[in-house]
Amino acid sequence: MSKDKLVKDITSREVDFAQWYTDVVKEAKLCDYTSVKGCLIYQPNGYAIWENIQRDLDNRFKETGVENVSFPLLIPESLLQKEKDHVEGFAPEVAWVTKGGSEILEEKLCIRPTSETLFCDQWAKEVKSYRDLPKLYNQWNSVLRWEKTTRPFLRSREFLWQEGHTIHASAKEAEERTLMMLKVYYDFVTEDLAIPLIQGRKTDSERFAGAKDTYTIEAMMHDGKALQSGTSHFFGDGFAKAFDIKFLNKNNEYEVVNQTSWGLSTRIIGAIIMVHGDDSGLVLPPRIAPTQVMVIPIAAHKEGVTEKAMEVYENLKKLGVRTKIDLSDKTPGWKFSNQEILGIPARVEIGPKDIENNKLVLVRRDNREKIEVSLDELSRIPEILEEIQRDMYNKAKVFLDSHIYEATEMEDMINIFKDKKGFVKAMWCGEENCEDEIKYATGGASSRCIPFNEEKLSDKCIFCGKEAKHMVYWGKSY
Amino acid sequence: MSKDKLVKDITSREVDFAQWYTDVVKEAKLCDYTSVKGCLIYQPNGYAIWENIQRDLDNRFKETGVENVSFPLLIPESLLQKEKDHVEGFAPEVAWVTKGGSEILEEKLCIRPTSETLFCDQWAKEVKSYRDLPKLYNQWNSVLRWEKTTRPFLRSREFLWQEGHTIHASAKEAEERTLMMLKVYYDFVTEDLAIPLIQGRKTDSERFAGAKDTYTIEAMMHDGKALQSGTSHFFGDGFAKAFDIKFLNKNNEYEVVNQTSWGLSTRIIGAIIMVHGDDSGLVLPPRIAPTQVMVIPIAAHKEGVTEKAMEVYENLKKLGVRTKIDLSDKTPGWKFSNQEILGIPARVEIGPKDIENNKLVLVRRDNREKIEVSLDELSRIPEILEEIQRDMYNKAKVFLDSHIYEATEMEDMINIFKDKKGFVKAMWCGEENCEDEIKYATGGASSRCIPFNEEKLSDKCIFCGKEAKHMVYWGKSY
Repeated sequence: MSKDKLVKDITSREVDFAQWYTDVVKEAKLCDYTSVKGCLIYQPNGYAIWENIQRDLDNRFKETGVENVSFPLLIPESLLQKEKDHVEGFAPEVAWVTKGGSEILEEKLCIRPTSETLFCDQWAKEVKSYRDLPKLYNQWNSVLRWEKTTRPFLRSREFLWQEGHTIHASAKEAEERTLMMLKVYYDFVTEDLAIPLIQGRKTDSERFAGAKDTYTIEAMMHDGKALQSGTSHFFGDGFAKAFDIKFLNKNNEYEVVNQTSWGLSTRIIGAIIMVHGDDSGLVLPPRIAPTQVMVIPIAAHKEGVTEKAMEVYENLKKLGVRTKIDLSDKTPGWKFSNQEILGIPARVEIGPKDIENNKLVLVRRDNREKIEVSLDELSRIPEILEEIQRDMYNKAKVFLDSHIYEATEMEDMINIFKDKKGFVKAMWCGEENCEDEIKYATGGASSRCIPFNEEKLSDKCIFCGKEAKHMVYWGKSY
Repeated sequence: MSKDKLVKDITSREVDFAQWYTDVVKEAKLCDYTSVKGCLIYQPNGYAIWENIQRDLDNRFKETGVENVSFPLLIPESLLQKEKDHVEGFAPEVAWVTKGGSEILEEKLCIRPTSETLFCDQWAKEVKSYRDLPKLYNQWNSVLRWEKTTRPFLRSREFLWQEGHTIHASAKEAEERTLMMLKVYYDFVTEDLAIPLIQGRKTDSERFAGAKDTYTIEAMMHDGKALQSGTSHFFGDGFAKAFDIKFLNKNNEYEVVNQTSWGLSTRIIGAIIMVHGDDSGLVLPPRIAPTQVMVIPIAAHKEGVTEKAMEVYENLKKLGVRTKIDLSDKTPGWKFSNQEILGIPARVEIGPKDIENNKLVLVRRDNREKIEVSLDELSRIPEILEEIQRDMYNKAKVFLDSHIYEATEMEDMINIFKDKKGFVKAMWCGEENCEDEIKYATGGASSRCIPFNEEKLSDKCIFCGKEAKHMVYWGKSY
């Protein structure tokens, strides 16, 4: 039967998670490799998810006063080098333009790996008085980092993202903005993507190059690994001093600005796949799904079936539901499988018997529950979609909570990472050396974040036994 | 007075059109130069216009079945070289990446000047059967061409655009798509941007590199020059043969596909400025204006004025009008000038006397007409905005029509281009040499297009006197 034919192309999650991921990306036609090493094509199905992410997140940014801009793709070498920590972090992984037309360039230009330096250069020219502050800018673009390995959405040389950059008259205001944008990410990912998160501050070794503090949201994939899903950085005045971004305050004295940046990328699509997907393919949360309902007529050759299905399709669109109808000559079994692979949150089956009984059958993608809906009560369908959204979040939340362990002894921590999947909460002294040793001992678990509400599991660092400064979430990561 | 202060920064259009343009871009804060030679920053005011263009045009694309994608930024040299005419057209003006991280690349990569080659490379892999056709793809991105000179929006090394790429089972279907997308551009520019157009086919010498036919929409700026505002290309099977994009047709025989591409860029913002702007600044058509109405309270310190102005502001937003309110401590005169420079289509003035009379005064930006609107009839304001949109188009249409001249003798044509501003209609033999000679004789007028409905002005080519093949619109251009 064609249904089996379609699904057998997807490896089971439990057999080989990495292969399952690759299969889902391929079968759902989200993204493809190209002749350009390390660079990917976002196909229509994948890009449509990104467009919905852009729309929802962009609205949330604008509600906080952020304005969109577009800054250049290229950064002169001298500009990239202005902030010492930043250039050390990024110079080894940028691509260099050395020739334009037939001309060899006097100064080479890098393709932006991120754009702090460009924004600072502009602000140094533009900002004169406290009246010019704050500047709250964002851009949707692609950046390039010369990675060795490539995995769809998770790691590629070029990737799509948004980068927000703001400057403020005081450190306090900049710190508030840093946390405000982390909250925007947290709310967006939990509410619209139905992905539960842990959040907190990165340790010094995991901070962004040039930042004073980096805050992060971290999600747990179905294999128990962490995916850093969005970061928000407080820079203090480091860049501002390097670039001389100063302003006259209300007392007519010069001060330097304080700065933030924050970014979320197409990696988050990897998180959607690995949190919600199953052995039949993608499972998309309704709020972000390009198509929310697929209408599939059953025995479509019978009189009146296609007409009734079309009527349902049109009425669902009128209700604001993103709906498609599959009128192809494929079998219903093939159509069901296809809708499941694509992760469309619900399908509507409607055949002669349903029409006789003035109803349709809605099948939920997340749990395959069949729900009979009267044709006079189609307005229940948007409600069901919201239920799916909630249930998907709750299911993932149960998974996250039940895969977070505590350890106070190193042996326990090692065993947990050997035998189980998930995160471990453990105390830490604050030394980078202990982070390195823990990573080595556990076969790769790194500090994910120091949560805002730290518990006190013991007095001692789990590795060195010295006084503990923080509770840290540890996990292997993508 | 502050009003004068603001406006004196803008040179008069009639005194120096080029300087006027530069002043408007600067004073309205649309776009700025950067430390990166030839590359521009699109500031919030400029980028917000582009976002509205994207939204409206993207909807029109999707209504015709187009899907958005994202293809890589970089093109390997060997891929760029596959189609002979294409590489000849673009190779001299691309930027080359020769180094990635610390590694010198074996094959250099160019930053895309346009992406035909990448799409073809992907389709050669992806397309197998007639069932896979058509592919109707579009992407919003930036491209880079190593230009010598830079003018905001009109010419820069990096610019923002959309590039649509489609492949089809037959030449006929591809040609229909080429014209369909030209019509999408035509409708969008005339309806949403209120810019009247001429349209038609480019002569061979003005065709896109690798195209069999290039169609264009051309607008007339206030100085009488032409701005090519959007192009749609029919490629036939040239690229398809070079890249071996073949499919099995219904008879199980191999055929090569036929292809189109079409693009519209941020140049169009230059057209909006130069068609509608005046000596007080920008004038934006309401449908594309980021802010449609600016509410300005008069004598705001008097009791109840700010509250009433806020009420009007909120009610206009509820009516779907993109509204802002200026509650700053600047003078009303400054606020009026600022709203005019920014090109906001209408301002609402409301003071104590207006409130007494239960009305407000709306001042149209395009013609400065003052209209009294009862506070009980705010729903008139969206109607007035539509009137402004219509009137702006009609005014520009009168300008266009009254600046198109006919010539059948070369001397007349030369005199028209010397004494007047605008386009000239004249007959042409079809030889590239005559185009060159006409350009030289007129001090730079090039063939803009061969319109779909050609008139027969005479039997002879205006330059060589041989038999005329086509009527051509000629004009100096940006």
